[in-house]
Amino acid sequence: MPEWRKDPVVDRWVAVSTERAKRPTDYRPPLEQKKQERCPLCVGHEGDTPPEVMAFRRLGSEPNRPGWWVRVVPNKFPACRVEEDNRVTQEEVYLKRCGVGAHEVIIETTDHEPNLVNQTEWQVAEVIWAWRARSLDLRRDKRLKYISIFKNKGSVAGASLEHAHSQLIALPMVPAEIATELAGVRAYRETKGSCVFCDIWRHEAETGERVVVEGERFLSFVPYAARFPFEMWIVPKDHQHDFAQICEAGVHDLAQILRESLRRLAWTVYDPPYNLVLHTAPVNDAPGEEYHWHIEILPRLTIIAGFELGTGYYINPTPPEMAAAALREAGRRYPEVVSIVQEVRAGV
Amino acid sequence: MPEWRKDPVVDRWVAVSTERAKRPTDYRPPLEQKKQERCPLCVGHEGDTPPEVMAFRRLGSEPNRPGWWVRVVPNKFPACRVEEDNRVTQEEVYLKRCGVGAHEVIIETTDHEPNLVNQTEWQVAEVIWAWRARSLDLRRDKRLKYISIFKNKGSVAGASLEHAHSQLIALPMVPAEIATELAGVRAYRETKGSCVFCDIWRHEAETGERVVVEGERFLSFVPYAARFPFEMWIVPKDHQHDFAQICEAGVHDLAQILRESLRRLAWTVYDPPYNLVLHTAPVNDAPGEEYHWHIEILPRLTIIAGFELGTGYYINPTPPEMAAAALREAGRRYPEVVSIVQEVRAGV
Repeated sequence: MPEWRKDPVVDRWVAVSTERAKRPTDYRPPLEQKKQERCPLCVGHEGDTPPEVMAFRRLGSEPNRPGWWVRVVPNKFPACRVEEDNRVTQEEVYLKRCGVGAHEVIIETTDHEPNLVNQTEWQVAEVIWAWRARSLDLRRDKRLKYISIFKNKGSVAGASLEHAHSQLIALPMVPAEIATELAGVRAYRETKGSCVFCDIWRHEAETGERVVVEGERFLSFVPYAARFPFEMWIVPKDHQHDFAQICEAGVHDLAQILRESLRRLAWTVYDPPYNLVLHTAPVNDAPGEEYHWHIEILPRLTIIAGFELGTGYYINPTPPEMAAAALREAGRRYPEVVSIVQEVRAGV
Repeated sequence: MPEWRKDPVVDRWVAVSTERAKRPTDYRPPLEQKKQERCPLCVGHEGDTPPEVMAFRRLGSEPNRPGWWVRVVPNKFPACRVEEDNRVTQEEVYLKRCGVGAHEVIIETTDHEPNLVNQTEWQVAEVIWAWRARSLDLRRDKRLKYISIFKNKGSVAGASLEHAHSQLIALPMVPAEIATELAGVRAYRETKGSCVFCDIWRHEAETGERVVVEGERFLSFVPYAARFPFEMWIVPKDHQHDFAQICEAGVHDLAQILRESLRRLAWTVYDPPYNLVLHTAPVNDAPGEEYHWHIEILPRLTIIAGFELGTGYYINPTPPEMAAAALREAGRRYPEVVSIVQEVRAGV
């Protein structure tokens, strides 16, 4: 039974696996991505995953059979599960709660392709629709307070399967990162009377030096205090706290700007490993209407080491303005072909 | 000129390199540790580093020549420098400050040996004395508010040189991680009237299920909500907020328990990459007398990915109780030889 344990000093919860626990011998090196002979995410291998919770599929096709183009399944090794209850237990200095939550995998394409940028804009839009649908469905469970959607690309960024996929973890608490951001948003509004994310994207669009792509409804830019080289944020121009508020035209625009940003990243720094994280407002009774949802793309070209883990601060060897200029230039030089980049960084 | 940039939403500062900035082509894969032909940290190569700021050396031996056993030099690519000033500039939504601080490398041994556990206890104690001496010297600069001391072992954990070394970054602000811990320590004291770290080590020593090694003045244990498999904390039993308050007997005991904890880790999970972080109270006028200093050892056997970066929470596949039992068992089975472990995980 998985459980959530709280650090006794700070707001940091850890999902501790107790069922499929890894023993010391499981960590025998080399700790590299195992080449899987048979990919459980490929079309035709539907029986290799737990039964699907949702899929976009051809009319008349059966669940857990081919005919889908985006498919969502429970994670085979879940960090938490809806079947668990929400009981909180205090034992002396320590607090834990049962492992309630949800952990799902969004399979982004039928074919064995690691790179989301090699999909059409239409397919990327379908992935975004799947994120939205799962977020709306899961929040009907009132115990859940936050739906975390993210994507790990490449083994260095934590992907254990090569086939393009994203993940969703629904949590019974508002995560520390989001609570801290919300506090920042509120503090800014109190002194300035406006939304800090609205002010940021307007300032970035105006100066332009850190912009990567500008769309009608979204701005993609390298943040001023980027933690990682070539980090990008995609911020909606309309003030929306909840990602699920996105409209149909918004999904279309986001698919375009997301794909284009990732495409430029792949061209600029050799198709790097990255994490993509959707930041959005808490759900259910957890307040957060002041929030402004956005996507953060975090290339993993540097290593999170002792300084970062000990302080929460970062060292970024590439100035954001230099990164943004290179990303814009890549868009000009390589108008539309991406797949050959894979040859450059084969296997990462 | 390096600069510190603050994220406009949260308390997160990033040291942005502007001088030796890395361009896109510097990220060409493979992103592996380059085998250096000539190690700049080895004895006899003193001229390959910037001039030393301190060394423990034989009477009569000259600075920047052989004769030392622990040597401290400025980092060749510093994140920040004492020569910079402390000016803070607000530009629209953004805040930055000049790159004041210090970034030093503590060379832990003369010979080209990556593993601190292969040193004698006496040598480990000398490294601890060097940490203390640098912390005391640097805080004389009243602009500095925190001295971060850490160690990256193995390229996966961020070490760019193999030769055993630790690092020190002195900061003009109290880092977010420490501020958050301090707030937790204060909140606990307000409700319980005692120090949370004192209560934790006493509870751990009493139950024993997560203990790794117990010494006279220190307890080494796997924390209840460990973020990483085989994570260990070493906490002094006396309530001391500032690491530099350590007495001579304390240095001796810490050297023993630190070396023994790392030795057991190496034996249990094949000499893994790890980060070691010293957590201590802020210095100068930054208050923090309620703090309780300690060392955190963070093995890098799992990957910090989208979930961790997006939420600040972690998934730990190895229950702390199982990890502690294996670490204790390693101490029983392998009484004193360590160096052969290196053959198991050669090159990491």
